Amino acid sequence: MSQNWWQNPCQAPDEAIYQQALERQQQLTKPAGSLGRLEALAVQLASLQGRLKPDLAQVWITIFAGDHGVVAEGISAYPQAVTAQMLQNFVNGGAAISVLARQLDARLEVVDLGTATLQDDLPGVRHVRIGAGTANFAEVPAMTVEQGLLALQAGRESVLRAAANGAQLFIGGEMGIGNTTAASALACALLGCAASDLSGPGTGLDAAGVRHKAEVIERALKQHAVSGDDPLQVLLCFGGFEIAALVGAYLACAQEGIAVLVDGFICTVAALLAVRLNPQSQRWLLFGHRGAEPGHRLVLAQLDAEPVLELGLRLGEGSGAALAVPLLRLACELHGQMATFAEAAVADRPA
Amino acid sequence: MSQNWWQNPCQAPDEAIYQQALERQQQLTKPAGSLGRLEALAVQLASLQGRLKPDLAQVWITIFAGDHGVVAEGISAYPQAVTAQMLQNFVNGGAAISVLARQLDARLEVVDLGTATLQDDLPGVRHVRIGAGTANFAEVPAMTVEQGLLALQAGRESVLRAAANGAQLFIGGEMGIGNTTAASALACALLGCAASDLSGPGTGLDAAGVRHKAEVIERALKQHAVSGDDPLQVLLCFGGFEIAALVGAYLACAQEGIAVLVDGFICTVAALLAVRLNPQSQRWLLFGHRGAEPGHRLVLAQLDAEPVLELGLRLGEGSGAALAVPLLRLACELHGQMATFAEAAVADRPA
Repeated sequence: MSQNWWQNPCQAPDEAIYQQALERQQQLTKPAGSLGRLEALAVQLASLQGRLKPDLAQVWITIFAGDHGVVAEGISAYPQAVTAQMLQNFVNGGAAISVLARQLDARLEVVDLGTATLQDDLPGVRHVRIGAGTANFAEVPAMTVEQGLLALQAGRESVLRAAANGAQLFIGGEMGIGNTTAASALACALLGCAASDLSGPGTGLDAAGVRHKAEVIERALKQHAVSGDDPLQVLLCFGGFEIAALVGAYLACAQEGIAVLVDGFICTVAALLAVRLNPQSQRWLLFGHRGAEPGHRLVLAQLDAEPVLELGLRLGEGSGAALAVPLLRLACELHGQMATFAEAAVADRPA
Repeated sequence: MSQNWWQNPCQAPDEAIYQQALERQQQLTKPAGSLGRLEALAVQLASLQGRLKPDLAQVWITIFAGDHGVVAEGISAYPQAVTAQMLQNFVNGGAAISVLARQLDARLEVVDLGTATLQDDLPGVRHVRIGAGTANFAEVPAMTVEQGLLALQAGRESVLRAAANGAQLFIGGEMGIGNTTAASALACALLGCAASDLSGPGTGLDAAGVRHKAEVIERALKQHAVSGDDPLQVLLCFGGFEIAALVGAYLACAQEGIAVLVDGFICTVAALLAVRLNPQSQRWLLFGHRGAEPGHRLVLAQLDAEPVLELGLRLGEGSGAALAVPLLRLACELHGQMATFAEAAVADRPA
């Protein structure tokens, strides 16, 4: 059934390589465990890549963008036109993720899934216009089934392009004015939390703005009364096109065998949806950072995820994941290039 | 007075550039504050370098090594011979810091201040032998005044070489079997804490080993009864040659106007000594990571220091600071290369 491609099996990490990589870590010239979390990251990447010495030279970043009907409720500090303006900024090289992609020598793809204001194609942007933004979920479900499936598929196709280009790590980023509101609503529905637990300032709401945002979400949750056990319905009801594309991308990465580095709050909610849709996908997910949005902590905990960085970021665009790339690369290089006790003739600790 | 060079004034950060850099951050195409701690780091580096767009291409790393007489008390999991063996590993390229320096394109200098076992010079190592390790501070002060001054000066000379080579960031690393015991004793004397509050497993002691280490330190603190208000006496009493060299290096960086990235527990204790010897030096110190050694948290708090990373590291060698370099570089590149709202024709938030 073509609409259920995401339920197909995911790739399995390589258990034999996992054991070999673990043993190698014990032989390197350092006290056992002294590289902390970098050791486990290198071992995990070895098992995901199926090679004793993993390599992250080829990093692929896709930014998915889309507008949100729920901005009609006045839940964002920024005007909706910014979504389209930022698409231009991404491809012109002036956005944070543009700078990061350049410095990391990563491939940056920008996919427009439907903005409210953009009429013409932008050179360098891949346009997959599913609609002029989602519908306002304070009134009706955000997406039709058809729109949701198109968005999931758009994410998958991005991963297939990444795979064809030899990507060793996939980062999904998002841009969409209003999308912390969508992500908070999604997380509330999935976790069964109150909107006040999961609503934060987003790009910069004040306390009254956050309260209003929580009220909008709380009303919508009551109105739609969708079960948290039906992740696809939750996604259609509250999600954005860019969030659905992230879900599709994460699921496709797990099926194609490409490690994922998840960005901030919105991407982590997409990761939770992916894991609910296909639990096998979880083993392919690494987490870049714990962001400033208060709900992020709860969603990460639900996934037992321990991100690499915690820097108070709240930008999105995949920026927090991109910032973690050098650490993952260094983890791999330490794992691959350090001498063993035997090679260096250094005394290991007495048994 | 030549023995008090470290009391000479430190350079002043550039306040005008600080304000300009702060204003620039507000104009970049991102919600204000959304790059979290990276914004403050870029602004601080701008003011330290005296340029609106700071640059960290030239990173200099010096590893200071020395042995510790207190290992006679059985306070380390590793034999003392490892200090000298690791010197060889540093210059052969097999140690963690060797790999990191290579990947970061950083200059790596290795300075031997006196090991217990090394007889011959090692190619690639700078030998400044102050003694065959320090004396056992469980019995007598670790260093004579003359030894302490030589070690402080050795650190300073390393910084003068770094400055002559155009270093934009200085990282000091340390190697010395037994030096978490020395660092814990130093911190206890400076902070007036009990040894049990500041003693940890170091490279891998078990619980009984940690208790024994704390007893050794507690006895030595009582025996020497040195005042925490006299940081030079504290350093001579409990320090290692490599720790004194780090203190001298940090003070010289502040005087030469080179930003410092402080590594883990032992380096942070050296930073605390530097700040006690010359409080102006504090403005030149950035902190790379919060390590696994329990005492690190207390010493960082004393310095109001908020490190960039927290990865459970406990290796030393400057490795935790080196791992933070890519983040500082990316902070500078984001600050320098992102488009402003005006340049990108993106709507800033409504006033």
